[in-house]
Amino acid sequence: MTDKPATTTAPAAAPKGLQNVIVGQSKLSLVNGTEGKLIYAGYKIEDLAEYANFEEVIYLLWNLKLPNKSEWEGLRKALFDNMALSAETIALLKSFPPKATPMSVLRTAVSALALYDPKADVNTVEENKRKALLLTAKTPTIVAAWERIRNGKEPIAPRADYGLAANFLYMLKGTEPKQQEIAVMDAYLVLLSEHGMNASTFSARVTTSTLSDMYSAITTAIGTLKGAAHGGANEEAMNMFFEIGSADNVEKWFNDNVKNGDRRVMGMGHRVYKALDPRAAVLNRKAKEMSDATGNLKWYDLASKLDKTARADEEFIKKNLYANVDYYSAIALYTIGIPIDQFTPLFAIARIPGWSAHVLEQWENNRLIRPDVDYVGPMDLQWVPIEKR
Amino acid sequence: MTDKPATTTAPAAAPKGLQNVIVGQSKLSLVNGTEGKLIYAGYKIEDLAEYANFEEVIYLLWNLKLPNKSEWEGLRKALFDNMALSAETIALLKSFPPKATPMSVLRTAVSALALYDPKADVNTVEENKRKALLLTAKTPTIVAAWERIRNGKEPIAPRADYGLAANFLYMLKGTEPKQQEIAVMDAYLVLLSEHGMNASTFSARVTTSTLSDMYSAITTAIGTLKGAAHGGANEEAMNMFFEIGSADNVEKWFNDNVKNGDRRVMGMGHRVYKALDPRAAVLNRKAKEMSDATGNLKWYDLASKLDKTARADEEFIKKNLYANVDYYSAIALYTIGIPIDQFTPLFAIARIPGWSAHVLEQWENNRLIRPDVDYVGPMDLQWVPIEKR
Repeated sequence: MTDKPATTTAPAAAPKGLQNVIVGQSKLSLVNGTEGKLIYAGYKIEDLAEYANFEEVIYLLWNLKLPNKSEWEGLRKALFDNMALSAETIALLKSFPPKATPMSVLRTAVSALALYDPKADVNTVEENKRKALLLTAKTPTIVAAWERIRNGKEPIAPRADYGLAANFLYMLKGTEPKQQEIAVMDAYLVLLSEHGMNASTFSARVTTSTLSDMYSAITTAIGTLKGAAHGGANEEAMNMFFEIGSADNVEKWFNDNVKNGDRRVMGMGHRVYKALDPRAAVLNRKAKEMSDATGNLKWYDLASKLDKTARADEEFIKKNLYANVDYYSAIALYTIGIPIDQFTPLFAIARIPGWSAHVLEQWENNRLIRPDVDYVGPMDLQWVPIEKR
Repeated sequence: MTDKPATTTAPAAAPKGLQNVIVGQSKLSLVNGTEGKLIYAGYKIEDLAEYANFEEVIYLLWNLKLPNKSEWEGLRKALFDNMALSAETIALLKSFPPKATPMSVLRTAVSALALYDPKADVNTVEENKRKALLLTAKTPTIVAAWERIRNGKEPIAPRADYGLAANFLYMLKGTEPKQQEIAVMDAYLVLLSEHGMNASTFSARVTTSTLSDMYSAITTAIGTLKGAAHGGANEEAMNMFFEIGSADNVEKWFNDNVKNGDRRVMGMGHRVYKALDPRAAVLNRKAKEMSDATGNLKWYDLASKLDKTARADEEFIKKNLYANVDYYSAIALYTIGIPIDQFTPLFAIARIPGWSAHVLEQWENNRLIRPDVDYVGPMDLQWVPIEKR
């Protein structure tokens, strides 16, 4: 047992899951989990969710300042110019089996965009910014097109008079979205677009750190977001609400499955937030407003009651388990008419500006992210030919 | 500036690139960079490269023991049974533009395999082992098929009497590989199949840590391997040898470009090895043997001379820069007739058993890998409406 991993300085064992380990610097966002605050490049998330549209926040994340009118118009036009899918991408989506998981479809389609980009492997700042724009613009179209194609419908082309939020709803449903739906969609996209060194962002940075390309990094991030402990949680929350079925059943379900069972309340608790997730507070309001507008408060009331029931539980109080971003966003998205298994692809649409901003930041000051591992397997085994085993 | 990231314990700033930071335990391999030693699950890499074929090492990585004859035959048959591509996968490859980068093609095609797997999102141990087998078996076929398709040829189906190494060469070239070529290919695949917590393996673990699926994790790893500071280095090394052109030009090239320039010798230097990479020592021999067999020693002699020239340089001595796994593997693969831009896909073929073994290990004892970041951007900015910016 004399062999140990090589070191130039003494190796240090990090906390499991790299909890609280600072892996670098960023100018993109500050997540204050103790106080439940979130800031993007200096601006409070509450202000951005209330006043900004998605394009303003995309500009902010890529330029670290808010756009003036002409910069905003320029970005909006550039996004629209990149939004339509090529015939090849539409043919690709049509070749996929209708039952395929939307997140797997998105991961594959985004990866395939690289095949049609002659500069996919050119990693200059200029090229990386171009790819960030292209991916931000095309991902909503891919998600909307897949929804239509898997239901036997033709994809719909984007409209020049719409921004990204409105275009997504329009291309998904084929009807003109209501003003309130667009506003809620914008708020959702703003709230979900960036969040410090979360797992998908970190994975995109690890991919980038080998000098791999933007398409690889975003494909990585989509695959990482897919997990139930990350972006997949919004779908799990909605499926839990369905299982509970009605507000009347909340207390019984909670007592049977959580208090006296081993299940968790999906969409509550967070690695960083030990206070109320500030995004959840906004999304709670948005979910209520959307539900009021449709006249169907069934799911909002259920979610609200489960939230209160859980928050009154001593374990939830002790462990600081609060509703996170996935909890009320599930209600808001469901009420707008987003299919459940498109919640996580929509999360990806929102996060691509943040992911790509982190990729650009990683390139600015890169070093290969290559940690070490503690080998705990056997040592000094002697080779034995297969006949003698 | 009162806001700081939330912590339950005090945050700790990790070394850049997580150098020497131990992120967990593994029974798969020990990389001793000080002494230049590498061990897979107890066995010295030199013994495995000399005596084992790829299937024995695949079994070792997945089961932490070497197979007996019937276990080995069972794995070989199971791999063969999964090796052929579906009509959908072949049609997918045929739809891609011939100029697409092979690593981008592989990343996309592997991601697409999930779409045809009804249990792609079922993450039981049994299902994950099935997917590890499927991915290990199909990746060589995808790489070989793409090589043929992009050259306007029909893909070739695998042969039941061949193992994975021979089948790859057979499906790539369409002719029966020589015994020596198979042996070198087996040694290459064995040597490259596992290597501690390298960047691609780590990225696959980050993806897995969100409870995402095996296809997502391996797609992530392929995208991460692609970078020039990781798997992409073997192609860069060969292109450098071409640029130098002949052994006569080595000293001049080295003096002009490295000693008195700002270029690096591609394939020399390694994050962990501060001694000779033990894989490079074996591959040096294999490259020589293959070159002797073909009677063309031009590239081997050039590489060998550059290696000696660099190793005699005081900077290389001081910085412990030695040939790494990519350096002589470039010569070995080129001499076998692998196209340069298929070197990195071949690295991926070799590494899938290791990646998938790490994914299985991550599931055994998972915790979300979610580090923190030091926010260094502006604070307390006030929202200004777009008309006033």
